[in-house]
Amino acid sequence: MTIDDPNVYARECPSRVVLNRISDRWTALIIGVLEEGPARFTEIRKAMGVTPKVLTETLRALERDGIVTRTAYPEIPPRVEYELTPLGETLRTPLAAIRDWAEEHLNEIIAARERHDGERSADA
Amino acid sequence: MTIDDPNVYARECPSRVVLNRISDRWTALIIGVLEEGPARFTEIRKAMGVTPKVLTETLRALERDGIVTRTAYPEIPPRVEYELTPLGETLRTPLAAIRDWAEEHLNEIIAARERHDGERSADA
Repeated sequence: MTIDDPNVYARECPSRVVLNRISDRWTALIIGVLEEGPARFTEIRKAMGVTPKVLTETLRALERDGIVTRTAYPEIPPRVEYELTPLGETLRTPLAAIRDWAEEHLNEIIAARERHDGERSADA
Repeated sequence: MTIDDPNVYARECPSRVVLNRISDRWTALIIGVLEEGPARFTEIRKAMGVTPKVLTETLRALERDGIVTRTAYPEIPPRVEYELTPLGETLRTPLAAIRDWAEEHLNEIIAARERHDGERSADA
């Protein structure tokens, strides 16, 4: 199947599903870990603070979408590594911009919330 | 409250909450609608295909975070418009990159899924 003219604003367009996959904080964090190079499950988990269940689900979805590969090395003990595919590499820049925005503008957001919540309690 | 050194990889850092807010497909779509100029609730809803409930919740969260303003004009019938704040404007470029990525790489993702699901059914 090929979609000729993807449009995330079209309710039925499958690009909405892709938008949902990459608009995910766990995806943004995983890609940031893997841009340093291949990593094991436990390394990724420790680097980002996430439950094993959520990490497993997100890595499986990224693998299915061709963004990450999972390689099992026949060693004892077994070693499994995750790595960005060339497609996954193209997400590095846009997702780094999202992570950077969150850090750079955090204090503005906190101030806006304090203002907003203060106004609401003043109304009450 | 001011956070000195925000880090989205630190489990307790409030920048994770901000990352979660902007890593949201509805946020990505709303910002793309509002970058054309102020818009009413119904205009936003029609432009992006979203339930009123989800749109209301997302707009309220964006308003609280200082990303969007809500202005009620004392007219009959009442007119309410949403508009990007200067802080919201700074999200235009990074979120446009995310939307564009979803559209540009959709067919690669579809192909990866077909490959992946085909391999799995061949295994079975």
